[in-house]
This record gives sequence, C-alpha cells and structure tokens, in this order.
Amino acid sequence: MTLTLQQIQLVRTPEGLPLESDFALHTATLPAPADGQVHVRVLALSLDPYLRSAMAGRHLSAPILPGDVVRGEGLVEVITSRHPRMQAGERWVAACGWRSEALLDGDAVAQARPVAREIDPPTLALGVLGMPGLTAWAGFKLLADAKPGDTLVVSAASGPVGATVGQLARLAGCRVVGIAGGPEKCAWVMNEAKFDACIDHRAGDLRAALKQHCPKGIDIYFDNVGGDVLQAACEQLALGARIVLCGLIAQYGGAAPAGPNPGLFIRARATVRGLVVYDHWARLAEAQAEIGAHLRAGRLAVREDASRGLASAPAAFGRLMRGLNQGKALVVL
Amino acid sequence: MTLTLQQIQLVRTPEGLPLESDFALHTATLPAPADGQVHVRVLALSLDPYLRSAMAGRHLSAPILPGDVVRGEGLVEVITSRHPRMQAGERWVAACGWRSEALLDGDAVAQARPVAREIDPPTLALGVLGMPGLTAWAGFKLLADAKPGDTLVVSAASGPVGATVGQLARLAGCRVVGIAGGPEKCAWVMNEAKFDACIDHRAGDLRAALKQHCPKGIDIYFDNVGGDVLQAACEQLALGARIVLCGLIAQYGGAAPAGPNPGLFIRARATVRGLVVYDHWARLAEAQAEIGAHLRAGRLAVREDASRGLASAPAAFGRLMRGLNQGKALVVL
Repeated sequence: MTLTLQQIQLVRTPEGLPLESDFALHTATLPAPADGQVHVRVLALSLDPYLRSAMAGRHLSAPILPGDVVRGEGLVEVITSRHPRMQAGERWVAACGWRSEALLDGDAVAQARPVAREIDPPTLALGVLGMPGLTAWAGFKLLADAKPGDTLVVSAASGPVGATVGQLARLAGCRVVGIAGGPEKCAWVMNEAKFDACIDHRAGDLRAALKQHCPKGIDIYFDNVGGDVLQAACEQLALGARIVLCGLIAQYGGAAPAGPNPGLFIRARATVRGLVVYDHWARLAEAQAEIGAHLRAGRLAVREDASRGLASAPAAFGRLMRGLNQGKALVVL
Repeated sequence: MTLTLQQIQLVRTPEGLPLESDFALHTATLPAPADGQVHVRVLALSLDPYLRSAMAGRHLSAPILPGDVVRGEGLVEVITSRHPRMQAGERWVAACGWRSEALLDGDAVAQARPVAREIDPPTLALGVLGMPGLTAWAGFKLLADAKPGDTLVVSAASGPVGATVGQLARLAGCRVVGIAGGPEKCAWVMNEAKFDACIDHRAGDLRAALKQHCPKGIDIYFDNVGGDVLQAACEQLALGARIVLCGLIAQYGGAAPAGPNPGLFIRARATVRGLVVYDHWARLAEAQAEIGAHLRAGRLAVREDASRGLASAPAAFGRLMRGLNQGKALVVL
C-alpha cells in the first residue's frame, strides 16, 4: 500500500518578493508508515516570514533549496501511528511541510507539540498559542524589562507577534503604539487589539507620527521588520530604552542592509537584545497558560487570515511577504 | 588688576579631520577673581576624542562653535580662590578650556574634582584615574557582564579607555584581544598591557585575524571606534555576546553612518548597551580605588602621550584624531 499526497516544491529561489511561479504543486507517493513513523493529515499550514529567509539560505534553520518541498509547520491529525508518542485521532503541531499528508519520524515526531482539545479553533496552536505567541511572550516578558507607564512601540502590529506583544504590554500597563501598513490593519489594531495608537507607515511621515504619539520618547521598541522603520524608531528612543530585535522582514528578500547608527543607542543608553524563539521552547506551556487565560477572559484579540486549499499556499505566502495579510497567515486544507 | 592669559579658539568647524588652521592662539585679559570665583593655572590639558564630536554639534554636551574657546578638562592648580570649595595650592581636574590660566565659577567649580597629592604623576587624574578610567571601569564592570574565560575584544586598545578595559578584563580572568593601529601600539599592548593578542587593523585582514584569535567567537566586544571595525567584530560574535558601545571615533569627523546589520545581533542573541560616562560619575571613587590598587601593585600599565606648551594643542589634537597618539593624549603647559 502506498500513500498518495500533494506537495509543493520550491522550483527556484525567489528574487526579492516570492512569486507563485517560484513554486509548483505536484502529486507524490509515499510508502505506508514503517515502524517509528506516523502518517498524518495536514489540517492547516502556518505561513511565517522566516521561511523567506530560509529560502535565501540566511535563516538559522536549514536552507530551503530549489527542488525541496517547502518546509513549515502545520496543524496535523494523526491517521496511523507506528510511534509511541502519537496516537490516531490526536492533533499536533508538526514540521509537516507544504503537503496534504505527511509521514513524520525522527526529529519531526520528537519536536512535535500536542494540541489540547480545548484549543478552539485549533489553528490558534499555530498562532497566539504557538510559535508567534511564544515569540511575543518571550520578547516582552523576558527581554523588554517593561514597567507600567512605559511607552512601547511595536511594528507589524497587526501580525500575530506584534498584536500579541502589544496586547501583553497593554495588559501590563504600558502605553502601546503600533505601526502597521494600511488603514484596515490600523483599524483592527485600534478597535480590536485596543492599542492606544496605531501609525500607518504607508501614510504620511512615520517620524512625525512617532513624535506625536510618543512625546516622551520610546521606552521599548519591539522590532519585527528592520529597515527604515527600525531606524526611525531608534531616532526617538527615551533614555534607558530597550529594543527587542525579533524579525527583519524588510530584508528577508534582499541583501542584508546596515542597521541604525550606534550613536543612537549610546545617546539613549539603550539596551538592544536579539530574540530567537527557539531558545525559549521550554517555556511554551508558561506562555500558553498566560496568553490562554487572557484569551478566555476576552482580553486579547486574535485575527487569522486563512486561505483555502494547499494550492493556495504560494499566493498566500506572496501576500504575507507583501504585507497584504490581515492577521496570522494560514492555509486551511 | 587684570589677568593676562593665552587661550585657543576654534576659528572654524573642521571638515573631517581637524587641521591646525582650524584653531588660533591669542592673548586675552580677564578681571581679577570676584567673589565665588577661582583663579587657576593650567598644568595639563586632556585631549579627548569627544571634543571633535562637540565641534560638529553632535555630542551630548554643548557644541563648540567657531569663536568659542575650545572646551575641555585640565589638571589645574589654584592660584587664588574666592570660593569655599577650593584653596590656593590645591590641584583639581576642572573644565578650564584650552587656556594657560582660567577663572572658574558656578558649575565649573561645582563639578571640579580634587586630585589627591598621592596621585603621581598627577596627570593620571586625566587618564586612568579620571574620565577615561571611569569609562573603562563602568563599561567593563557594569555593562559587560564578564565571566572568567570570556574572550573580550576591545578596539583602540592602546588608548586610555581601551587599555584599561583590556587590563581590567585580563585581571578578571578574560582572554583579551586588542585591536590597534600600527605595530608600535600593538607592541605596547602586548608587552606592557599584556593582552593575549593584539591585531593591527592597518595590516592585513581584520576579519581573518579576529577569527584566528577568537576561534570560539567574541563573548564581549567593547567598541571605541564604530565603523567597519564594529561591523567586523559583530560578524564574529559568540552566542550570548555582549557589545558595549562606548565611542564612535570613526564617525566623529563625518556623517553619521549606519551600524551593523541587526541580524548579527539576533543570530548571536546579543545584548548591546550604550555607555555614557556622565551617568557614572557617582562611582568615580570606586573606580579610582580599584584601578589605583592595580596601579600600585604594578598590575596595570599606563601610557601618556604629552605634547609641550598650549600652542601645541591643535597639532596634538589633530594627531589624536588621526590615531597617531601613543597613549593618553595630554598637553603639558
């Protein structure tokens, strides 16, 4: 017996922003699961900006090369398990890749994370209760050294990391200013995530808007984008500011640009810290418990941007990399 | 009765590196000290790179404009005092400016620091027992989070800040690698300051030399220069590295350049901190006690580069900004 599945390959390394033609969908067959293997159905794929960096060979994780099935995590349901860690019918988050079904073994089984039945919708395990949520929690709780009354600015504020950072900060008594692209994202950040302000970096003068909304300077800047937004924020740091460097979406597609002038950090006596979520997996349960409590109490808004069907993944990934997604980017199969 | 003194004005803001013709020596007269004023003779002037930044109007302190007498601290001896804080015959470090004699009052008296008679030579109060020493001590003890066995790299390693950082680190059990310009500076750093290695950034490939001397990466990088040396060091950070940003001599003369790619900080999970010595004046006695003990025990080498006569100050300052000084730059009057 063999398994027939669909999967998406990278056919060439994107130049700049990814195009649909950089990917191809095809049908593949796999043998039935052997001892130690688990056959899963993919319910939803998580689309994450770091994948673009991996396609450029510049991410901490392994590169994704032309010919490779695109990597990435998904919400999966176990069909048949020949590994003691997983049982048929269970839901897990696992490194399944861009496939309709997958055979997991080795590290993919060892590193998979169970999804509790009470997580509803279960795709939250790919977002605010998964990697993006842990990223936000670790960055805010462990690296930002926040105090009530601090002014926190976060970029990509409508994305799953940014929105969670901002809401955790609001719940901790900070004044929270988001930066997002376009009026629709800003409206969600203001009306649903209830930030104190949200700046549309595509409209008007970002530096003037930061000055207006942060009259005493920026105490904490949580950076998800790099590039000129990072530079602009660093020009308006308050004394003793903390900068958490989390993502550099502005440069994932191109050459590695320079960063802000270090004189800005000296002038502000700033502390800059680099965040890699992989360092913090051991604290996932703690992050889930805290964020989950806020979710159940209705204190924390989440937004998912789900496209339908595996074939839609390349286009949805292209929208993510162009900042056109509205919330956590998913592909629901 | 009036006082006749010599003083040096800035006559125009330097373009790039300062020239002697950017300055002019002239004779001035001052009235005899009034109530609350102190008449001092200048024994030695401290030449410090931050003055170049102040001449560009880009330092935290006030700008030095064409027509202004050049600011700066010196070792002074009180001739006549009409202020209760100072007595005739005492030695102080004070903001006297580039003058042969000065009238101090107000803040200049309040912020002056007494020089104990046992400091020998007393010019050490302008160097390792003064602002450069405190800079090094605060950066190393308060911001670098050093552990025995750490590999520390420091730029401008033969200067008063860099040499003190490296020697404090050596005494704390770190492996210390200096970066300096030219064989003479490197020889002093190795033979007198007893670093483990010193790289001549003017000879050969800095990145290859850093790799050779820091095979496990750089745990602490203490930056006194900015520019490409900062970039090169940040490319070879160890996991969990700390970067202390102290000075940016590479950019004091020109436009403010960009800094290292922030992806380097993320990859290393680095912590970057900006250091301003003014924040740490309250701990000067503590720094002096520790550094003084090392000096008396012969564990810490110092080097002074003294030029003779007030008129030599512009040329000596030009040599400092070109990296041609050998040790702490002073003008002895």
